[in-house]
Amino acid sequence: MTDITKERTAPHFSCTAIIGVGLIGSSLALALRERGLTDKIIGIDQDKDVLARAVALNIIDHAASSLKEGVQDADLIIVAAPVGSIGEIVARLGEHARDGAIIIDVGSVKGVVAAAATTLPERLFFVPSHPVSGTEQSGPEAGFASLFEERWCILTPLERNDDAYRGAVDKVAALWRAVGAQVDVMDAEHHDLALAITSHLPHLIAFTLIGAADDLESVTEAEIVKYSAGGFRDFTRIAASDPVMWRDVFLHNREAVIEALGRFTEELIALQRAIRWGDGKALHTAFERGQALRHAIVEAGQETASPNFGRDIKGDEGSEQN
Amino acid sequence: MTDITKERTAPHFSCTAIIGVGLIGSSLALALRERGLTDKIIGIDQDKDVLARAVALNIIDHAASSLKEGVQDADLIIVAAPVGSIGEIVARLGEHARDGAIIIDVGSVKGVVAAAATTLPERLFFVPSHPVSGTEQSGPEAGFASLFEERWCILTPLERNDDAYRGAVDKVAALWRAVGAQVDVMDAEHHDLALAITSHLPHLIAFTLIGAADDLESVTEAEIVKYSAGGFRDFTRIAASDPVMWRDVFLHNREAVIEALGRFTEELIALQRAIRWGDGKALHTAFERGQALRHAIVEAGQETASPNFGRDIKGDEGSEQN
Repeated sequence: MTDITKERTAPHFSCTAIIGVGLIGSSLALALRERGLTDKIIGIDQDKDVLARAVALNIIDHAASSLKEGVQDADLIIVAAPVGSIGEIVARLGEHARDGAIIIDVGSVKGVVAAAATTLPERLFFVPSHPVSGTEQSGPEAGFASLFEERWCILTPLERNDDAYRGAVDKVAALWRAVGAQVDVMDAEHHDLALAITSHLPHLIAFTLIGAADDLESVTEAEIVKYSAGGFRDFTRIAASDPVMWRDVFLHNREAVIEALGRFTEELIALQRAIRWGDGKALHTAFERGQALRHAIVEAGQETASPNFGRDIKGDEGSEQN
Repeated sequence: MTDITKERTAPHFSCTAIIGVGLIGSSLALALRERGLTDKIIGIDQDKDVLARAVALNIIDHAASSLKEGVQDADLIIVAAPVGSIGEIVARLGEHARDGAIIIDVGSVKGVVAAAATTLPERLFFVPSHPVSGTEQSGPEAGFASLFEERWCILTPLERNDDAYRGAVDKVAALWRAVGAQVDVMDAEHHDLALAITSHLPHLIAFTLIGAADDLESVTEAEIVKYSAGGFRDFTRIAASDPVMWRDVFLHNREAVIEALGRFTEELIALQRAIRWGDGKALHTAFERGQALRHAIVEAGQETASPNFGRDIKGDEGSEQN
């Protein structure tokens, strides 16, 4: 939550290695390229097909055949893999990255990343990053350069106080600003609490609703689809997100998510009780809070003011019908 | 779920009375007018200011000074008031509506409406209706004529088998089709179960998440707003819906909502347990279901295929920033 240096000069890297060329990795590659922040982009991915598609889409310049080959010349290394893989990747970077390289990740959980970073030598500068942005889509085809614009990126720097590391943090902050993001800095523990409520719990709730609907015998899937405009469809967007990414988030932010879930369940039981006992006043009081919070989110530029997210406006592809 | 007559000739009414000129009442007024389905529209509302605005916006032709005056000449009466008020309004219509008038409501709960209708004389034809569409906004300014296009409208006809009543049901179905909706027919009890899962539970969950976020001491509201693009903002749309309307929905569909809530809580506890015990396989299996269901909803024309509901596309007002 500390404010960071206002360094606004866009940084420049001669060679960027991106490990994991999915939605976030691709979007960052496209944003770096569009703004001239790097001379060359090398892609690394377990999935050779993903790499070939990323080359064909001109997202990366070169597909590396191994992590070692891909990172050895890079002065910027972006780890855009699921949270569960970051530890192993970081350990290998300790061996293969060149002196002075800046490493960032883009993971949604930061405690586990900070723990993994303790094995890194001092010659490498790892600045854990979390751009709070994304879509429900996955893979290189889903990437786009403006994904980070007006969104927040949270940095959770390691406990290092040497000048070289502080310089690297400034440079990473400037990188995120250069791709359009606003930058916050906080410790990993607070990040994991804040994101548990603003991101992880909403995803868990959305997955839960899908599961509850799936299990009903009395209502058919066809009915759920047809009447989804009553509210259900809003939840399916985030429930369509990458299952591997989200599995890893919950496995690695267990305590904060269970804490947030506890609050959620208390509130849910209180509302259930109000429904059971016909306490209209309690329901009304609880329901009144939504409008003010949404208004604040719209005002902050994090949401559209258009009704129904603007998706039902005529001419939008949402109105295509078979 | 029975299929209804395919009567597609648009009906015509000489005088339409709309009781409750909010989002749905206004939208229906605008749709009727745009398609030439009525010669005249009279508005009735407890709130005189709402009525004056509806006249100024050219949504209604005339603001009635009382329910009696407003409905006495109407051959179509639309009850667009919160579910909790429908019973009392219907009882008064039994006194004041003219012989042969067709009455529809637009409420989100149908069991309570069917119960209210038992007091009506046979000379009136009440066809309970629920257009499964809406936005998070309220009041006459929020209305628009295309609100019902491509959405489903569910009819839950009363237990009357006379030809005149069946004719009225056909005419109401044709009315909804004429404003762009697709029509389903089912009994009130099944409606209330199906909508509990596709609409009422999602709203309750969204209100619950807002409350849980509000109660956290460790994370500030400013942080919730800033990082809401991580998923939270999706829930605020339906949580910004009219608190009175939703209070009434929960008070009048108690049993079905509590049943749906039971399924939801079971699923939530199962996922919480998987998180606590680090059961990645169970989480992955649960999370995989979201993509298929969303795909089905997009295919059915009930949702946009654009990432992030299309709201982050440049040029959209969602990208305005202060």
